[in-house]
Parts: sequence; C-alpha cells; structure tokens
Amino acid sequence: MAADALPRTRLFIDQPLAAEGMVALDGDRAHYLRAVLRQGPGDKVLAFNGRDGEYLASIETLAKSAGMLRLDRQTRTPVTDAPPSPWLVFAPLKGGRSEYVVEKAVELGVGRLVPVYTRRSDVGRINLDRLRANALEAAEQCERLDAPDVVDGIDLQKLLTTWEPGRTLFVAAESGDAQPLVTAVTAAAGKPVAFLVGPEGGFDRQELDALRRLPFVVSVGLGPRVLRADTAAFSALAVWQAAAGDWRCGDGDARPPNRV
Amino acid sequence: MAADALPRTRLFIDQPLAAEGMVALDGDRAHYLRAVLRQGPGDKVLAFNGRDGEYLASIETLAKSAGMLRLDRQTRTPVTDAPPSPWLVFAPLKGGRSEYVVEKAVELGVGRLVPVYTRRSDVGRINLDRLRANALEAAEQCERLDAPDVVDGIDLQKLLTTWEPGRTLFVAAESGDAQPLVTAVTAAAGKPVAFLVGPEGGFDRQELDALRRLPFVVSVGLGPRVLRADTAAFSALAVWQAAAGDWRCGDGDARPPNRV
Repeated sequence: MAADALPRTRLFIDQPLAAEGMVALDGDRAHYLRAVLRQGPGDKVLAFNGRDGEYLASIETLAKSAGMLRLDRQTRTPVTDAPPSPWLVFAPLKGGRSEYVVEKAVELGVGRLVPVYTRRSDVGRINLDRLRANALEAAEQCERLDAPDVVDGIDLQKLLTTWEPGRTLFVAAESGDAQPLVTAVTAAAGKPVAFLVGPEGGFDRQELDALRRLPFVVSVGLGPRVLRADTAAFSALAVWQAAAGDWRCGDGDARPPNRV
Repeated sequence: MAADALPRTRLFIDQPLAAEGMVALDGDRAHYLRAVLRQGPGDKVLAFNGRDGEYLASIETLAKSAGMLRLDRQTRTPVTDAPPSPWLVFAPLKGGRSEYVVEKAVELGVGRLVPVYTRRSDVGRINLDRLRANALEAAEQCERLDAPDVVDGIDLQKLLTTWEPGRTLFVAAESGDAQPLVTAVTAAAGKPVAFLVGPEGGFDRQELDALRRLPFVVSVGLGPRVLRADTAAFSALAVWQAAAGDWRCGDGDARPPNRV
C-alpha cells in the first residue's frame, strides 16, 4: 500500500499494539466508527497508543458499542530521540476558548497541558474529561504518535512551589523588561521549557512580582498589540516550534520521518 | 492622567479626529456603549480611525441609537514608519473558524485579509459584513491604530493572475520541497509578504502545481504534524511577527511606542 493510500481515520487505542494482534474498541470509538464514519468490517484505520508507534488496522467486528481491530502492520516506528516537548500552563478561559487552546496546543506539539488558577481567573472549574477528549481528538487528527497529558487544575502558587527543576518557565509579559520571544526561545532550544499564559484580565501585581523573583522564570514579550490569552498561548508555541522545535529542519514534507 | 488610567474601551470611528472636535456615534456604537457597557455622559473612551492616531474622548450625549463624543486630547500619534504588514489569504472555513481566523490575524498585525475560493473550499460564500465587524472589534480590543481591510472573496486563479508585483506569497505546503518557515520569513523581513492557507482538504494537485510555477510563490513547511487550516494561518503570522515583524525589538512593554 502506498503511503498516500493510508486511511485518514486515526484512533488512539490505549492498549499494547503489535503486528497481527487484536485490540478491542471501546464503546465511544466503536460508535464513532459505525455511526459517524459509517465504517464496517474490512475498513481500514490507523491505531496509535503513545508508545508503540502507529499501526494499520482492519475492522474485524463492529457492533453498536463494541468492536475489534486486527493490526495488519506497523506504519510508523516509535520516536525515541525527540527533544523534550514544551508544556503549556494556561488559565482556563470562557466561551469554549479553553477547548480551542487545547486543540491548537496539541497540533503545535505540546507535551503537557496544565490548567492553572490565578487571582483573576474567571473560570473556577474546568471540565477535565472534556479537555482530555479534546486533546486525544486533536492528537488523532494531527498525526501525532503521542497524546499529551492534560493534568488537573492547580493553583499558580502551588504550581510554582513544586516546579520541575531545570524547566524554564516563559511568562508572556504585558509590561516590564522582557526578551523578544524569538530570542528567548532560540536560546532555550533543546531544553525543557513551559509557557505560562494568564487569564484575560492578566496576572495581578503580586503574582507578577512573585513570578519575576523565581530563577526559572523568563519574561518574554509578544509585541506591541494586546493579545487575547488564547492568541498568546498558541503564538508562543508556534514560535517555539519554528525557532527551537521540530519545524526547523523539516523540508515541508508533512509525512513524518519515521514512516515505514 | 497617567497612561495606566486610560479607559479600556476603544472605538473605531470612521471620521476625522482632532483635539477638541466632536464626532457622532453611529447606532451600533451608541447601543454598545449604553446597553452593553452601561456608560453615559462624562464617561471616557478611546477613539481611533486608522489615520489620525488615537484620542481620549468623553461621552457628551448618549441616546438609544445615537450619541456624541468630545475629543479631549491625542493619546497616540499616527505611525508613519511602520514596515509593511503581512496579508493573509485564506480559504473560508466552517463552524465559526473563519471568524476566529480573522480575530487572531488582526491581533497578529495582519494588513489585509483576503478570503479565497479554491477547488476544495467547503464554504461557498462568506459573510463579508460579519468578517469586517470581527476585524474592527479585534482592532479595538488589541489596541491597533488601524483596522485591516477585509476584501471580498476571490477565486484563487483570479487572485494569482492579478497578484501585486513585488509581494512574496508564502504557501503553507503539505508536501514537496519547502523552506522552514522561520528561515523563509527571516529572509523576507521588511518586504511585502502574504501567507496563503488552503481549505481543510488542502489544495488540489493542479492548484499546487500552478502555485509552484509562480515566481512570487515560496513554499514553507510548518513541521511534521498535520495542522488545521486555522492553526496554519495564525502560526504563520505569529512566526512572521516574532522573526521578521514588530515583536523583534520590543522589550515586552505592551504599551505602544507612540503613546503620548
């Protein structure tokens, strides 16, 4: 089968994958294949689990809320030498914008999504299941081999006191001295980093002062216009990938280099 | 009045602005100020028209669908030495994503938005008035001094045959040889450019071949993941601003340099 003829449907299957193995479909995925995509036995899909690469699979059985896939062959090997993926720490947003941030961040290669509560956060609770489903769906769609973590919401103060040693935290600054984003991220290429984006109302003065005192925090500037929080989040990730991440050496071929 | 105390409400007013002048509010803006923001005579707003900088204004009268502003003083001078702003040429998207692309592109400093119809476009008509309203609203919110053009939709073929001489057209390529985005845009800093992003289904083979033959077209790669069209659009603009545009020399101070 030519690479071009691979099926477009990709499913995240949280089970071990190996050629000639069989894996069970959960109710949601069986329903999606049957009722939404109108597929049935013999149709092909791609399966990945974040560990074993990607497999071409055939639908063996498909009922209303169950089904089986037969794994035909491996189509992509696991990536073992990838540089660390950036994390995104974001204050939850109203009006579906958190879901949008998750979708875009996954497409832009984020490794972990961390909802954070700040003093001016205007969303008190997140729907973690929904954000995780958004992340999985985006991973399926954008041909990632892994599905990024979406961890539970945490207070900013607590996050900072338990921060992972050695990981730089870039903060999108609205004022004060800050490095241009491209300069800051280029200098951090190959290192573990995270981007922190506050709520629409911004951080309050005490939060900003506390952030600036932390040795792992680097303030970055995102230009003269006032960006919405969602724009700041995925702009930072896009510039990271372009200047320090996996967009640098690509030749524009969207086909992943580990396609077999 | 300290710069920090400037009002947050900004209005695009398409009339000449000068200190101590009076300008009439149209029905939409009068309604917005009165019914949505609950403002009244004596309250302050900022006004801009894309030509005369920005003015602090006081609401003089405010009725249900009319009102008058008195212009107190200029708060920002017109920008006269700005480098050319990038254009975005985009295939209209479904599900509110065109509106989202417009909002983000305006925040990211786009100079002109050009909806383009391609063979695989899945939206046959655009609501031009709505997209223009989105662009104005985003310009008000992000503190731009200008409001970008949203021109009427045009067929790709016609757009290419009437392309502005000297303007580079970067095409987000899904395959084939392409330069990394950051390399391509850095080389074009200071020059007139546009980014072309196709529909979710991509360009068809003939369109891609035609694009590649044009001397002003440069294919750029956006990494190994498959990006949705909206992600490709604002990622390209963010990387442009970071690497070649007005995010480069900023010190992170969101306050525009022409604040008086």
